[in-house]
Amino acid sequence: MSEEKIQVFAPASIANVSCGFDVFGFAIEELGDFVDARFNNQGKIIIESIEGAEGLPLEPELNVTTIAAQALLDEVGEKRGITFNIRKTVIPGSGLGSSASGAVAGAFAANELVGKPFSKLELVRFAGVGEQVASNQLHHDNVAPSMLGGFSVVRSNEPLDVLSIDYPEDIRVVVAHPQIEVKTKQAKRMLGRTMSISNAVIQFGNVAGLVLGMTSKNYDLIGRSMVDMLAEPVRSRLIPLYDEAKQISLEAGAIGTNIAGSGPAIFSFCKGDKSAKAVLEAFKKVYAKSNLSVNYFTSKINPEGAKRIF
Amino acid sequence: MSEEKIQVFAPASIANVSCGFDVFGFAIEELGDFVDARFNNQGKIIIESIEGAEGLPLEPELNVTTIAAQALLDEVGEKRGITFNIRKTVIPGSGLGSSASGAVAGAFAANELVGKPFSKLELVRFAGVGEQVASNQLHHDNVAPSMLGGFSVVRSNEPLDVLSIDYPEDIRVVVAHPQIEVKTKQAKRMLGRTMSISNAVIQFGNVAGLVLGMTSKNYDLIGRSMVDMLAEPVRSRLIPLYDEAKQISLEAGAIGTNIAGSGPAIFSFCKGDKSAKAVLEAFKKVYAKSNLSVNYFTSKINPEGAKRIF
Repeated sequence: MSEEKIQVFAPASIANVSCGFDVFGFAIEELGDFVDARFNNQGKIIIESIEGAEGLPLEPELNVTTIAAQALLDEVGEKRGITFNIRKTVIPGSGLGSSASGAVAGAFAANELVGKPFSKLELVRFAGVGEQVASNQLHHDNVAPSMLGGFSVVRSNEPLDVLSIDYPEDIRVVVAHPQIEVKTKQAKRMLGRTMSISNAVIQFGNVAGLVLGMTSKNYDLIGRSMVDMLAEPVRSRLIPLYDEAKQISLEAGAIGTNIAGSGPAIFSFCKGDKSAKAVLEAFKKVYAKSNLSVNYFTSKINPEGAKRIF
Repeated sequence: MSEEKIQVFAPASIANVSCGFDVFGFAIEELGDFVDARFNNQGKIIIESIEGAEGLPLEPELNVTTIAAQALLDEVGEKRGITFNIRKTVIPGSGLGSSASGAVAGAFAANELVGKPFSKLELVRFAGVGEQVASNQLHHDNVAPSMLGGFSVVRSNEPLDVLSIDYPEDIRVVVAHPQIEVKTKQAKRMLGRTMSISNAVIQFGNVAGLVLGMTSKNYDLIGRSMVDMLAEPVRSRLIPLYDEAKQISLEAGAIGTNIAGSGPAIFSFCKGDKSAKAVLEAFKKVYAKSNLSVNYFTSKINPEGAKRIF
């Protein structure tokens, strides 16, 4: 029985990506969950500490990290418990996949401790079990890219079918995160239950266009496909200065700008570092007029996903 | 002023392709519209004859072929009229893009006569003007592949944005066309105006999956992405023996089977000629039990689209 402590990292991620509601997602760099994990002798999962976010449950049966880990332990019949120390660098309720990186870190850490019986692609399923608690719905559009890295397409949740697609190497992500909290559950409720078929058809076309734009590295096609008829018209109203920020980012050279997940963070895709810098400045200019606290960063798409640090 | 007569061909096509409602379409071989066209001295478009289909209007302002041609003549300011003789080998109301091949042939022929000012991609717009009359709605999912050949994605109708995508070279199409007529307008009405967001999300995933399956030539992915939550559940009820035909075709090795356009024709995708033959026999077996008249054929995807014959 190992008492060895490991540390894993699972990155933040941005889901939906305009038209790909509940389907598209990509991983971002550096930000995410750092989780220390070791077997314990108490026969149950324990959370010793959570840093970096307030109000998250320490009860293992309520926490996404430990729910995901427990699902994996149950499946392999592992009777030992794991003790977790969690450090989050993504604020919950930002739209940057905080619960997903938590769930991914839990599943990934448990898999490492029990001897890696599962591939990363298989681990997406366990992370989904944790993520389901946060959003009250089975979806993998954040957990898939956080686990796998890159740009993911969740073709189907049941049965789970996740595809990784190519993207331009010099694509950059710029994020502005106004510090107001939007709960995923609440944001989902705002959408209602139906969409018009005419809007759905527009969305089908853009989903196809965004996939083709990414895989063929055609920035113009990526840009004109970043149209969302479903969530953006409703959810953007929750985000201070959204319309203005979007417009100015596009004028500053962004390929496309939309809501990160269910918000309130906003992201732009840009071509290269120089453009990303210009768009970052444009966002700052917009929010300088407000008295909001806003976090900004630029990132590549993280190609690696979840990883073991030690 | 040329009195030269030309002949053009515009192929039949299959739109929707399961999940890609109003967005995906591909061209098929041999079947289609053969249109003879020559300038006349009467300053207006004239239809001399229509063969191969009954009940189509001879009035140029009501016929898709001549409406498309007139739209092009108007745009280039051509004052001469054109005399048309039309021979159709696709029955209207089959689901095989009969009106679209008519509209494509009209636009393509007019463009040839006036000296080819427009590219094929530009001609899709004029064909769409004709097609709109048949379905009371602006859509290009049949006219685009009939004009361009291959497999098309209509990313957007307004502004028009048509993408051509790769597909496996050995993909084959098998069609069974029970001889009952389904009017596109009527079939559209049956769908209602909305779809659930949960079904839309499934559709987004499959749209992405089918694009990726086609471009990466992954038959398994093509097959599992050929799921339609929107039209098939409703429209398949109009098609005799649909469920049985679909099931038996899949058992016989079809990659996927769905409704051609708004039906009543059914199509399967197959890998290679041998599999196509087996699926064709399976369809025949199903409909042999009925007293329906059914047309069957197999085809490659037509890579060429509209063309001049002489």
